[in-house]
Amino acid sequence: MSGKKLRVIPLGGLGEVGKNMMAYEYGNDIMLVDTGIMFPESDMLGVDYIIPDFQYVVEKKENVRGIVITHGHEDHTGAITHVLEQINAPVYSTRLTCGLLEVKLSKAGMLDQVQLNTVKAGDLVHIGPFKVEFFHVCHSIPDSVGLGITTPAGLIVHSGDYKFDHTPVDNWPTDYAKLAELAGRGVLALFADSTNSDKPGWTPSERVIDSAFDEVFRSAPGRIIIASFASLVSRMQQVGNAALRHGRKLAFVGTSMVENARMARKLGYLDLPDELILPIDQALRLDPKEIVIMSTGTQGEPTSIMGRLSTGTNRQFDIIPGDTVVLSSHPIPGNEESVYRTINRLFRRGANVIYEAIAPVHVSGHASQEEMKLLLHLVQPKYFVPIHGELRHLHQHANIARQVGIPAENIAVVENGQVIEFENGEMRLGERLPGGWVFVDGASVGDIGISVLREREAIARDGFVLVNLTLNRDSSSLVCDPEIITRGFIYNNNVDDLVEETRHVVSEALKSDHNGSLQNDLQQTVKSFLYGKTKRRPMVFVTVSRE
Amino acid sequence: MSGKKLRVIPLGGLGEVGKNMMAYEYGNDIMLVDTGIMFPESDMLGVDYIIPDFQYVVEKKENVRGIVITHGHEDHTGAITHVLEQINAPVYSTRLTCGLLEVKLSKAGMLDQVQLNTVKAGDLVHIGPFKVEFFHVCHSIPDSVGLGITTPAGLIVHSGDYKFDHTPVDNWPTDYAKLAELAGRGVLALFADSTNSDKPGWTPSERVIDSAFDEVFRSAPGRIIIASFASLVSRMQQVGNAALRHGRKLAFVGTSMVENARMARKLGYLDLPDELILPIDQALRLDPKEIVIMSTGTQGEPTSIMGRLSTGTNRQFDIIPGDTVVLSSHPIPGNEESVYRTINRLFRRGANVIYEAIAPVHVSGHASQEEMKLLLHLVQPKYFVPIHGELRHLHQHANIARQVGIPAENIAVVENGQVIEFENGEMRLGERLPGGWVFVDGASVGDIGISVLREREAIARDGFVLVNLTLNRDSSSLVCDPEIITRGFIYNNNVDDLVEETRHVVSEALKSDHNGSLQNDLQQTVKSFLYGKTKRRPMVFVTVSRE
Repeated sequence: MSGKKLRVIPLGGLGEVGKNMMAYEYGNDIMLVDTGIMFPESDMLGVDYIIPDFQYVVEKKENVRGIVITHGHEDHTGAITHVLEQINAPVYSTRLTCGLLEVKLSKAGMLDQVQLNTVKAGDLVHIGPFKVEFFHVCHSIPDSVGLGITTPAGLIVHSGDYKFDHTPVDNWPTDYAKLAELAGRGVLALFADSTNSDKPGWTPSERVIDSAFDEVFRSAPGRIIIASFASLVSRMQQVGNAALRHGRKLAFVGTSMVENARMARKLGYLDLPDELILPIDQALRLDPKEIVIMSTGTQGEPTSIMGRLSTGTNRQFDIIPGDTVVLSSHPIPGNEESVYRTINRLFRRGANVIYEAIAPVHVSGHASQEEMKLLLHLVQPKYFVPIHGELRHLHQHANIARQVGIPAENIAVVENGQVIEFENGEMRLGERLPGGWVFVDGASVGDIGISVLREREAIARDGFVLVNLTLNRDSSSLVCDPEIITRGFIYNNNVDDLVEETRHVVSEALKSDHNGSLQNDLQQTVKSFLYGKTKRRPMVFVTVSRE
Repeated sequence: MSGKKLRVIPLGGLGEVGKNMMAYEYGNDIMLVDTGIMFPESDMLGVDYIIPDFQYVVEKKENVRGIVITHGHEDHTGAITHVLEQINAPVYSTRLTCGLLEVKLSKAGMLDQVQLNTVKAGDLVHIGPFKVEFFHVCHSIPDSVGLGITTPAGLIVHSGDYKFDHTPVDNWPTDYAKLAELAGRGVLALFADSTNSDKPGWTPSERVIDSAFDEVFRSAPGRIIIASFASLVSRMQQVGNAALRHGRKLAFVGTSMVENARMARKLGYLDLPDELILPIDQALRLDPKEIVIMSTGTQGEPTSIMGRLSTGTNRQFDIIPGDTVVLSSHPIPGNEESVYRTINRLFRRGANVIYEAIAPVHVSGHASQEEMKLLLHLVQPKYFVPIHGELRHLHQHANIARQVGIPAENIAVVENGQVIEFENGEMRLGERLPGGWVFVDGASVGDIGISVLREREAIARDGFVLVNLTLNRDSSSLVCDPEIITRGFIYNNNVDDLVEETRHVVSEALKSDHNGSLQNDLQQTVKSFLYGKTKRRPMVFVTVSRE
């Protein structure tokens, strides 16, 4: 099948194309790029998270020469343990990313079995037939890289998540020179981040957050509580810098944030003096005007610190009037309602809440339209494949590429599972692999599918009704009143009349003849009766025992 | 309780304050403003819509002198039949609003029993002790009004939903002169729309949509399908105008859109020549470049026309490559995921989809921050109460009011149910009424509460497991294998082993002693066993019969 051509495959189901995992395959050699998770959409009831379906690679696991991780965010790293459980291959990433992977692997007790290789921007690594050049890109986590991949079929540029920030917090801009140098060698194809393809202009620099923080620190009458992602190391730096400028002490709360801060300081990615940082219990003893607390919980998760603060159920401290809460984050699509609900609740408890819509306390880590044009001009690829986005983002990114002169026929908008082949300097679409999402729920991976989710949805819409009958063995008459249990259907205090009527309907139905099974007939009867009365369709189960 | 002071009460539960219904009460006289519905949030499983809890007014229904409806949107009109079923009072609204109410009332068979009064902007109506002056405001539906309410306690201005559009589609700007005139008389308090209080600047004029439509009509290679709200009459006018300019015929599809268009044309709010409009079946016979279709379904509802088009299940026509779909709308918060999913699916079927993020094919109907400042300066109220928004919007609107010079102590940020009293020219907060949401699900109103929704959520998260046992009457030993049914728990093909193990666990448990009820003990045993195996907590029901 794969012959001697380069095959590039975004893996996973519907969702963001190639965001979580991509395979580069040439002959009998495969290199994986990223091993991320997806967060469930709101109708995926009970699902904890989703990993890409990488069965295609598992079947060829002997061919996998290496796994490259571009940066330390969950949607690029979160499935690492699931992948390494099935595929034994060395992992390549920069130091900070490697540190974050180590935290994950050591939690899973897998650190000893895994070969983690640290690379740095500028390095060239041979992974099977692929010569991979790592180049620095700005993103909302330090030490992010894009890849120049020299393959026997030609040179590919894989952008990773990127933006062109001229004044990033770590003063390390995206490597324009390397992009130009790759272009000089002739780039066969560019695979580039489409996340913000519907955002006009240029994404603001992380630096704008400094002034927003200064304004907050100047006017806050009491404590400042700043929520962000645990992996947003540059935001920790910015909060720390603001605390230094305004004479406050900084306390991190939440295991993942505390751990990541410790690791990032150890590795030198977070430059904060020891005397700035206090444990939370000490910080809480200071005057409210002397502290800033940094925590996770920006997505309205009820069990997160911000979630608990909003409902008055946090263990170590509560919101007090005069607190200023800053959500230095953007709601992940689908979380808007719960984020805004949390904000409303924090206001109700007396906090002043400052969030993205009110002040520039967050900026995106992804390139906007003008940056996308710049990347296309810098790289000058023959072919262009927009990745990292929903289909609507990819189409818009394709529009942008046409605007800057890439011929429409040299642009491929594909979905996950679509094989893209390169041979003799030409791109064409190969087969579409089967595949999809793998849902992770509780302790199990992959035993939940769409059908189970549809069942959950159906039960959730109207609840269910159980009818337990005990019949006389001989006469099929009721020995006692049917037992009726409902959940999620109607109020208990309204249910009495309806239950009584349902019992009556069942008794009547028992008197008539039954063509099919008694159980099915009664289920249909009860369903129709309840729909007639309530216009709702609960699941109905009838059990019959005889004595 | 109410004495001789003015009491203003936003009714409803949590959610947007005073959006759906407000009561103005003076002594034994009450006037209601608006009777709207709320749309359920995504964790309100199975709820169709929500109406405000207006029990307070029902208990004083003899006192209700009139119901004023400010404009024809669902969140201000949707509960009219529920209110009129319990309260018999004349309704006052402008002609278009009245037409939309008539459609609702006639569907409910209530048209004969209701006294609908048509007013026009500029009218003054006496409703009990209240002299209500209706003044024109721009909004995303024609014939919207704000209210100047002269009460014995002073003059109140109630903005309704508004924006200051200098170039509205119907060329009828918000009535600046009337606002200034009211200010000249001395306004005791302003109650004003806070929806966009986190949007800086000035909301663009509806007119900008015309150029966006021109661009779409110029470049569309085939049919154009424009989706919007059925009540957005001005958008119908704009689509019709664009069709005239570009030589296309217009077909409306969907009952509510067809009905509203017919009514709006009859009343003169929609000015389109007869020869422009075709029934959909005729339109579909024309060349694709000669038609534009206008439909509802902008919120990703699977059963709407756009929803069905996106999944290839629409009855009259399908998406064909070359179609241009325009979503002339904004996702209602909480609908983002389903809207974007619909857009992705339409792309997948070969349509080009143009939506708010891509081109200015929609503008908000609500004032932004600079317009809010203008309203405050025009009205010059002594007191200010932000309404129509979540708590976060109200706080931001209060910030804006402070910026333009309203003293902080003269601003009240309140939630629904909070009585606001005016006496001797002073405002103070009265009691907080109990109350909340009333959920409408299927045929029933109010028999679903939070507890039922929490049950639905619990079942939805992990599904449920039924265990039916038949025991020997005397020995309590199993007569046959336990019957085990699961829904929403795990795949059927994975369930076999687990079911077998569960049966074994139940059999073992039956052999030991039981302190409490056998049923409860077994439920606990099965729950613990399943949690240990799967880390999930399905609802477990054990039924026991004996023979």
